[in-house]
Amino acid sequence: MTWLELPEGTGFGLDNLPLGVFRTASTRFRHGVRIGDLVLDLAGMTELPVHETQVLNPFLVAGPGAWRSLREQVTEWLTDERYRARAERHLVPLADVEVRLPIDVADYVDFYSSRHHAENVGRIFRPGGEALTPNWRHLPIGYHGRAGTVHVSGTPVVRPCGQRLEGGVPTFGPTQRLDLEAEVGFVVGAPSEPGTRVPVDALADHVVGVCVVNDWSARDLQAWEYVPLGPFLGKSFLTSVSPWVVPLAALEHARVPAPERDVPLLPYLDHAGAPWGLDLSLEVRINGSPVSRPQFRDMHWTPAQQLAHLTSNGASLRTGDLYASGTVSGPSRDQRGCLLELTWGGTEPLDLGNGTTRTWLEDGDEVTITASAPGADGGRISLGEVTGRVLPAR
Amino acid sequence: MTWLELPEGTGFGLDNLPLGVFRTASTRFRHGVRIGDLVLDLAGMTELPVHETQVLNPFLVAGPGAWRSLREQVTEWLTDERYRARAERHLVPLADVEVRLPIDVADYVDFYSSRHHAENVGRIFRPGGEALTPNWRHLPIGYHGRAGTVHVSGTPVVRPCGQRLEGGVPTFGPTQRLDLEAEVGFVVGAPSEPGTRVPVDALADHVVGVCVVNDWSARDLQAWEYVPLGPFLGKSFLTSVSPWVVPLAALEHARVPAPERDVPLLPYLDHAGAPWGLDLSLEVRINGSPVSRPQFRDMHWTPAQQLAHLTSNGASLRTGDLYASGTVSGPSRDQRGCLLELTWGGTEPLDLGNGTTRTWLEDGDEVTITASAPGADGGRISLGEVTGRVLPAR
Repeated sequence: MTWLELPEGTGFGLDNLPLGVFRTASTRFRHGVRIGDLVLDLAGMTELPVHETQVLNPFLVAGPGAWRSLREQVTEWLTDERYRARAERHLVPLADVEVRLPIDVADYVDFYSSRHHAENVGRIFRPGGEALTPNWRHLPIGYHGRAGTVHVSGTPVVRPCGQRLEGGVPTFGPTQRLDLEAEVGFVVGAPSEPGTRVPVDALADHVVGVCVVNDWSARDLQAWEYVPLGPFLGKSFLTSVSPWVVPLAALEHARVPAPERDVPLLPYLDHAGAPWGLDLSLEVRINGSPVSRPQFRDMHWTPAQQLAHLTSNGASLRTGDLYASGTVSGPSRDQRGCLLELTWGGTEPLDLGNGTTRTWLEDGDEVTITASAPGADGGRISLGEVTGRVLPAR
Repeated sequence: MTWLELPEGTGFGLDNLPLGVFRTASTRFRHGVRIGDLVLDLAGMTELPVHETQVLNPFLVAGPGAWRSLREQVTEWLTDERYRARAERHLVPLADVEVRLPIDVADYVDFYSSRHHAENVGRIFRPGGEALTPNWRHLPIGYHGRAGTVHVSGTPVVRPCGQRLEGGVPTFGPTQRLDLEAEVGFVVGAPSEPGTRVPVDALADHVVGVCVVNDWSARDLQAWEYVPLGPFLGKSFLTSVSPWVVPLAALEHARVPAPERDVPLLPYLDHAGAPWGLDLSLEVRINGSPVSRPQFRDMHWTPAQQLAHLTSNGASLRTGDLYASGTVSGPSRDQRGCLLELTWGGTEPLDLGNGTTRTWLEDGDEVTITASAPGADGGRISLGEVTGRVLPAR
């Protein structure tokens, strides 16, 4: 039990303790742990220079032992009355802090691991063909995105311009099909050596935690550019992430087996003995109206399989690597994680329930994605939120 | 005229002056300029801390004015007898230095800008279909690669493992189709603001220089994985770059118009008034035998068009961004820049002229790619070389 009074059902109790980077009016950026609606200043509590840096990377590189020690230490500070006076001096109201992107993103990879999403997109983009490409059930398909345009929640979404077909003719202008993608991101803390593979049971040796991701997409740019080398400018203008990295260690109660599969797995992708499916519940809101509630437990490929695949060719991991799950979609319409699916390629407008409808995002729209997971003792753990408002093209 | 005695036809004369990072047995890594077979120690000459860092990024961020000033300063040191004694103390034989990757690579993008290459690959990978996808002539197709596995020339090429089809069945094991790709890389020094576009005539405001790139490829992994989201593990195990960044300013005599095009360009890609095609001659050698001499002047899309396209959606540039041209291939067989084309998908073995043939790279093979350009007064500028030897899979 903590000596702190936490708001009922906070989602940010002792079983969560996510890491982030914040500053106040009187401090530089530094590392903090969110607890309830407060932030514990790690630079103040520890006086370690590593916690007075503006990204988590210098701490994360120390690896799982250091992450675990810090988690135990913070728990002790917040439960043992002997630390109370000292800790209280280093607790700051969340309302008084500014957060920033908590990591220097090294490489950013985006997967495509929801079968429902991949099938829907296949039907919309390649009507008449097979919904899934032949490789889809055999490996977690992914591609590299732009690390330099990953920004923290709240960053404005300037409507991107680009080349797309208009009446069959290539034209340059603001995207007409701006979309959101509800995803979950995994943050690599501990690097790996070039030429080595990360086994499918070694997720927790490298991944420190998770965040909520909105992988904004311009569907008209994407549709015109993506054959044969994949998405590029249709994605690279912005990827938004939630500011508090929820430790993998906080998700013990969320672990579930992945859905049944219909082809045998190659051994490097098989973690039957230690399932790494995660029971995360997402919610997507547009201008405050809930439009979808995707369930991460429906994902066909798990983060452990994604990491094993990503490194199967010997590609090394660096501290700060971020990989996202791909759009999380479930079997029913109200579980689809992007407008492309929710409006079936823009053909079925979505009723926001407040007298407005949307096919694609309009200037001024605000999109918020939240996520939560089962915590200790029947409670919930919050992954926080990622939000962004669309601004007109420049 | 320099007071130095330079080897005849060195390619590293006063009109080149490429930047790199080196150390000797007695120094830490620091910035240097290659001149002939010597390296001028910039940390020693300037005593500026920025030049005693292990990557060029902290200097490059200062922008084109700083790059130009340094170039003028180095030229003065190497031509004015008054500086001779001081400079001689800071000149180190190339044979005594160890070089490293000269930049921290921020984002790595690979384009696909040779029409001959794209047509050949289209015919090999999609026989019976159109060689070029409909978008190809309208925009420079590109995709993000893995920045964390860009390494300096000389880095061993451990044969990657991965998932590929064998007799139609997904199998995991060492690639059977290891390939090279001869490319030219462009190093971004000066960043751009998020949400802004870099005009097609502003290449020199952002790009500091060029290097030679080998974008090693595992064709069997690539063929199985790349639909629909593009190349991933077939490329991400290693990209090798030459160690000396040749300033864009040294390539004034190499500028040529791009080849004729058969569709009109959208304005953001049109630099008719200031051509940025480059007359670079590449040579690919396998175990010392020349197998191809691709000409960069044949490239359909120029580096200026690539940069304008890359930022057309407002994606920002960071210091250290690297983008490569894509495989450089010409119209004739002996100008093809990869084995995929040279052996037509492995069906026509390549005679190395020394009693051996190759379809794909074998363990122990050494691949070296060199490049050069017209310099001042009818001389040549060398872009140096990128080399690597294939080691067996682990």
